[in-house]
Amino acid sequence: MWFEDIPLHVKTVLGSYTFTEENILAFARIYDPQPFHIDKEAAAHSPYGGIIASGWHTAAVWMKLTIAHRRAAVEAGAAATQDNYVSPGVRDLRWHRPVRPGTTLIYTNETSAKLDWPSRPTFGLLEGTNEARDAEGALYYSFVNRVLIARRPK
Amino acid sequence: MWFEDIPLHVKTVLGSYTFTEENILAFARIYDPQPFHIDKEAAAHSPYGGIIASGWHTAAVWMKLTIAHRRAAVEAGAAATQDNYVSPGVRDLRWHRPVRPGTTLIYTNETSAKLDWPSRPTFGLLEGTNEARDAEGALYYSFVNRVLIARRPK
Repeated sequence: MWFEDIPLHVKTVLGSYTFTEENILAFARIYDPQPFHIDKEAAAHSPYGGIIASGWHTAAVWMKLTIAHRRAAVEAGAAATQDNYVSPGVRDLRWHRPVRPGTTLIYTNETSAKLDWPSRPTFGLLEGTNEARDAEGALYYSFVNRVLIARRPK
Repeated sequence: MWFEDIPLHVKTVLGSYTFTEENILAFARIYDPQPFHIDKEAAAHSPYGGIIASGWHTAAVWMKLTIAHRRAAVEAGAAATQDNYVSPGVRDLRWHRPVRPGTTLIYTNETSAKLDWPSRPTFGLLEGTNEARDAEGALYYSFVNRVLIARRPK
């Protein structure tokens, strides 16, 4: 699929993930050992009133679900490749609500902008708006990913 | 320290971290199981020519080093609190070079902008430019963090 073939405003469900006390602590003990991520007692007396997930855990789960979704699409014949795209980075990561143990978040990606990328004219830049919401639709996390995709050869 | 007291263009070394095959695989097996992150044989035949770290691993390490740095500052009496600041999110994460096993990255934060935050006029927004470079100064990762800091009461 070439850059020109990608439709805008198409939303894809990437998958869902349940944050548990176990996986929250496992991530935070290594990468974000703040008391309200790793210490139940201290977290209970923090402004959050209990353990919450590290924001970087919430972010990393997006990658996990994206890889699993892409792999399933390849296996189903719905995508030609699971090759990684070239990305000039991501932007605007926002953590809207604390993620508590027992919360299941549904991650989605919506194609949101197609831009020129002058330094590599044979590619276009696709932006996707990514969100993580609970079953009631409350927004917990969002960011914009950006990938360079080859244009159709002329 | 109030928002008004924070000087711009001050660079702080947050700490350093050595990416190893062990910690690269441990992160990627859970959160980013692409072949070039978790499978030595497949990685050798990928465009990267070997295992590289997940970009989200490189990102999470910033949090790890920031927490350790803040804790050390509190213990040394150089900071009054290790309380978490309120953040409206981060922006412009960029992965400039692949991170291979054996690479040690030095993470730094430089205060780079002080902005008004109209929805919370008793706070100001401090932006920091964060970089991860090797000992020779080559840039691997960068992003901008943003924290709301209380202004001095009038």
